[in-house]
Amino acid sequence: MSSAPNVAIVGVTGAVGQEFLRVLDQRNFPIGNLKLLASKRSAGKTIDFKGKTYTVEELTEDSFGDVDLALFSAGGSISKKFGPIASEAGATVVDNSSAFRMVPEIPLVVPEVNPEAVKGIELGKGGIIANPNCSTIIMLVPVTPIHRAVGVKRMVVSTYQAASGAGAAAMAELEQQTREVLEGKEPTCDIFPRQYAFNIFSHNAPITETGYNEEEMKMVKETHKIWGKNDIQIAATCVRVPVMRAHAESINLELENPIDEKEVKELLSKAPGVSIIDDRAGNNFPTPLEASNKDDIFVGRIRNDISRKGTGVCGIELFVCGDQVRKGAALNAVQIAELLVK
Amino acid sequence: MSSAPNVAIVGVTGAVGQEFLRVLDQRNFPIGNLKLLASKRSAGKTIDFKGKTYTVEELTEDSFGDVDLALFSAGGSISKKFGPIASEAGATVVDNSSAFRMVPEIPLVVPEVNPEAVKGIELGKGGIIANPNCSTIIMLVPVTPIHRAVGVKRMVVSTYQAASGAGAAAMAELEQQTREVLEGKEPTCDIFPRQYAFNIFSHNAPITETGYNEEEMKMVKETHKIWGKNDIQIAATCVRVPVMRAHAESINLELENPIDEKEVKELLSKAPGVSIIDDRAGNNFPTPLEASNKDDIFVGRIRNDISRKGTGVCGIELFVCGDQVRKGAALNAVQIAELLVK
Repeated sequence: MSSAPNVAIVGVTGAVGQEFLRVLDQRNFPIGNLKLLASKRSAGKTIDFKGKTYTVEELTEDSFGDVDLALFSAGGSISKKFGPIASEAGATVVDNSSAFRMVPEIPLVVPEVNPEAVKGIELGKGGIIANPNCSTIIMLVPVTPIHRAVGVKRMVVSTYQAASGAGAAAMAELEQQTREVLEGKEPTCDIFPRQYAFNIFSHNAPITETGYNEEEMKMVKETHKIWGKNDIQIAATCVRVPVMRAHAESINLELENPIDEKEVKELLSKAPGVSIIDDRAGNNFPTPLEASNKDDIFVGRIRNDISRKGTGVCGIELFVCGDQVRKGAALNAVQIAELLVK
Repeated sequence: MSSAPNVAIVGVTGAVGQEFLRVLDQRNFPIGNLKLLASKRSAGKTIDFKGKTYTVEELTEDSFGDVDLALFSAGGSISKKFGPIASEAGATVVDNSSAFRMVPEIPLVVPEVNPEAVKGIELGKGGIIANPNCSTIIMLVPVTPIHRAVGVKRMVVSTYQAASGAGAAAMAELEQQTREVLEGKEPTCDIFPRQYAFNIFSHNAPITETGYNEEEMKMVKETHKIWGKNDIQIAATCVRVPVMRAHAESINLELENPIDEKEVKELLSKAPGVSIIDDRAGNNFPTPLEASNKDDIFVGRIRNDISRKGTGVCGIELFVCGDQVRKGAALNAVQIAELLVK
């Protein structure tokens, strides 16, 4: 494609949809025509982008005739229905939902990890690329360099996930609930069935027959697909914490070959998309607040696993934070599109 | 001792000190005379207990002449100075600080786990007993029955710790900061050097030369002492979350002998001090809010470790919540005292 691609954003009024616009602007992504799509309810709203005012249009089967790149973030059922329609109309779809992630022929891409997976896809010639789950992306950006160096055998990960993963309404509910609790009122529970303010809870995704919830299983299956290695052992526990928009993860790695904390720090200091905050003397490590509105995944608490001392097994522990809306969703999708523009 | 013991509470104006009074009242602990001790700053304040008004006295070297049981929760340096003084004066000390926990001849006790460790100590005849760290207690109450049944080889634990662990002032700061953030103001950071409202951070305890912080090392060393087994492999990551008074922990267990999730559930359903909330269909599991002001440790997400499938290694995962001020501190100390009254 010689000229700038025509871009559609599906679900533009949501938290990720809004972030798409910010990221496209900040990265100066080349855009021919821009089409902002949403549900009938949001159609007619106006949104400013790069000094121009756009009117949100209703998403229909005819929305994609002149679109080269469609960035979807409107939930799984919308993606399932309209993703193939957009692709057939010639738009290349980068989809933020879980709808296509595990379809074998659809690439599941973290640009720092497996950019080669988009090979053969051309902007404006259809095709669907899936954006991984936010928790998977935030884990794999820092863990992949270690995996490449010494091989990850097993991971035990516990997450500290922000409200944003459940959308803008969940972020608003967390804020509203917090006000209500501080005023001594009963908290409003519309999005989640329990109090979220000053509380944490096991991730609300349905529990599968494995005993793990769907969010946890995504971290397992998506890692297997992205790394192309189904025997990586992963045990995840996903938990929501009352934080607005960045996730944290406590990651314990068992490695195939020896590496120590200094070597890991060295490796990660050169890794794309990774920033290290690991000041032991000052007790300064990544926090979700500092990671918010940033592109990088922040890594700290890099240490040799003390439980492996004297066992002959090599273990490394990490604590990572990344913006769920940004690298966990919108930025990663735009980076995928950038692979196609290059 | 035939009559009810004379009791002193050291640090009565703190969060745990106040909880001592509630727990003693609720459990109808036998009390002869009650002496409320605190720093000079708090001396003269009055506190009501069981319909009687007490005046807080300044803690001095002469405070313990007629005391049989002294419950300490005033920080490590106060315990180090006044614990031995109280013991020499004939008071049996149950100490909530870390001052004596790792002293070999001083028992470190979780009543559900190692009540036999208090053997030989008699109320009113001196002696010091240490109360473990809150995170250790909350982990060991549910994990010990599993350890006894099949042997724990290794644990990987990530904590979600409440403000209360840093005292009443930290709880107040979390509340104040939250108000400030909601009002768009800069948050006041007196207790912690960073924003705690709508944020999480690696536990503020100093980092040791192992790369682990002191809180994490307590979980390792205290477990070794309480179980009397120094080869248990433990990797802990301690994190503060903006929750008021109950901790949560994500616990991954590697076991010496096989057991499955159903057997663990069965085992824990009979375990003292444990309540199970593990409703997979309803996605209902323990939360710190529900665990607050409760005596039990709540356990859920009991599941076979999927990362161990087909490996021949047995693994179990748990998610637990317990009140930090109560079972993590005041209740456990009073339960220790009850062992001595019996």
